[in-house]
Amino acid sequence: MSPVTHSPVSQKQLQELYYKNLTLTKEDLKKAVNEDQLIVQAIANITELDKVCNLLSKRLREWYGWYAPELSREVEDHQEFARLVAVGEKKKTESFGADLKKEDVQEMIFLAEEIMHLFALRKRHEEYLKIVMQEYCPNLLELSGATIAAHLLEMAKGLKHLALLPASTIQILGAEKALFRHIKTGSRSPKYGVLFQHPLVQKARAKERGKVARALADKLSLCARLDFFKGELKAGEYRKELEKKFEVKN
Amino acid sequence: MSPVTHSPVSQKQLQELYYKNLTLTKEDLKKAVNEDQLIVQAIANITELDKVCNLLSKRLREWYGWYAPELSREVEDHQEFARLVAVGEKKKTESFGADLKKEDVQEMIFLAEEIMHLFALRKRHEEYLKIVMQEYCPNLLELSGATIAAHLLEMAKGLKHLALLPASTIQILGAEKALFRHIKTGSRSPKYGVLFQHPLVQKARAKERGKVARALADKLSLCARLDFFKGELKAGEYRKELEKKFEVKN
Repeated sequence: MSPVTHSPVSQKQLQELYYKNLTLTKEDLKKAVNEDQLIVQAIANITELDKVCNLLSKRLREWYGWYAPELSREVEDHQEFARLVAVGEKKKTESFGADLKKEDVQEMIFLAEEIMHLFALRKRHEEYLKIVMQEYCPNLLELSGATIAAHLLEMAKGLKHLALLPASTIQILGAEKALFRHIKTGSRSPKYGVLFQHPLVQKARAKERGKVARALADKLSLCARLDFFKGELKAGEYRKELEKKFEVKN
Repeated sequence: MSPVTHSPVSQKQLQELYYKNLTLTKEDLKKAVNEDQLIVQAIANITELDKVCNLLSKRLREWYGWYAPELSREVEDHQEFARLVAVGEKKKTESFGADLKKEDVQEMIFLAEEIMHLFALRKRHEEYLKIVMQEYCPNLLELSGATIAAHLLEMAKGLKHLALLPASTIQILGAEKALFRHIKTGSRSPKYGVLFQHPLVQKARAKERGKVARALADKLSLCARLDFFKGELKAGEYRKELEKKFEVKN
């Protein structure tokens, strides 16, 4: 047999090929970013902001405690606490706190203002999430709210995968630790993961929560499929069904 | 022996005693807050802000990476990175990043602005620290700078204790872990703790650093005593001495 003869490739042709390949790769990369990624980034950021707000609020409480220890005890909510410090909530005359100079208190006020900013940013991100989801997965958004829906997408690694998951898996997304403990040690299987945060589950009696979570996961699975295949809006219907089934009074 | 007879105490007298006691306690509590506490709070806050800036900057880099991955590689400094994102640094046309909608990029810009705020607050706290220290411990401030001096005060639990510590202890404040390892396992004793950050130690050759740290701790110990007993300003002199001894060219 005679060896296969290649037609000679010129330097110029090679270079052309190289640039063509580069352009295609770039286009593919650009297309690789879709709503899934944006949602996952936004929810990761919200989670981080929650942590940061918590850290700084604790610092503020300790610091401000030297000046007006009573306030921290009276106001439990971090955001409200920061607001009161920022607006210069007058300290009570019978306070046990030290009489600090204006400059000393001013630093605490700066910190409080910063914390308020961070809370505002968190809220803004949530609004943004809603807008993205309204377009991308309206059914999921409607039935589970922005935060839970984003967590589900994050854990399932995208809408496509979420749509392919069985409802029983959706039910325990976010409870992986308990699930593996169940598999390894035979302890009870988890009844819910991130769905625990859902108002329907929260409102249910403790004994019924597993049942509610299962029904909710069923409907969410349907929602994910509707959203992925750009189907109609049925989440409102599902919600009413669930509320009727578990007799939730609004 | 006849029993000791108490003069009867009336209800009114008891109550008077109670209020007198309360007032005294309150006064004591108020006086308990001194510059030490303010400095420790401020430096704790600076440490926390550093951590927070770091966390959020990493988030921003990941998020913005979908849009313009090149920028994160080009700019290492977190603060500068946030600034460039915030001013809407134009993305290069040959970027590998996705073409995102304006609303999507806007969220990243909000985060970048927040990070810049946090950096600014950190700087402001440092200025405040300097002002408090200028009054309270000018020698320490002059010789070691606001951050190191504050860390020393934090670890020594106040100026009084710092003034009472031997120089050899000051030298290794902040290296407790290495010190106990040395005591338990006989590994080498640490040469410096927080003093490692000091420019004099930083500029010294690796072999000389222990020596520089020891000399510096000597002088800082003197500074702490001068500051505690409200002595004269000698830190400038000390600094020149040290610089001459270790031939630092400015």
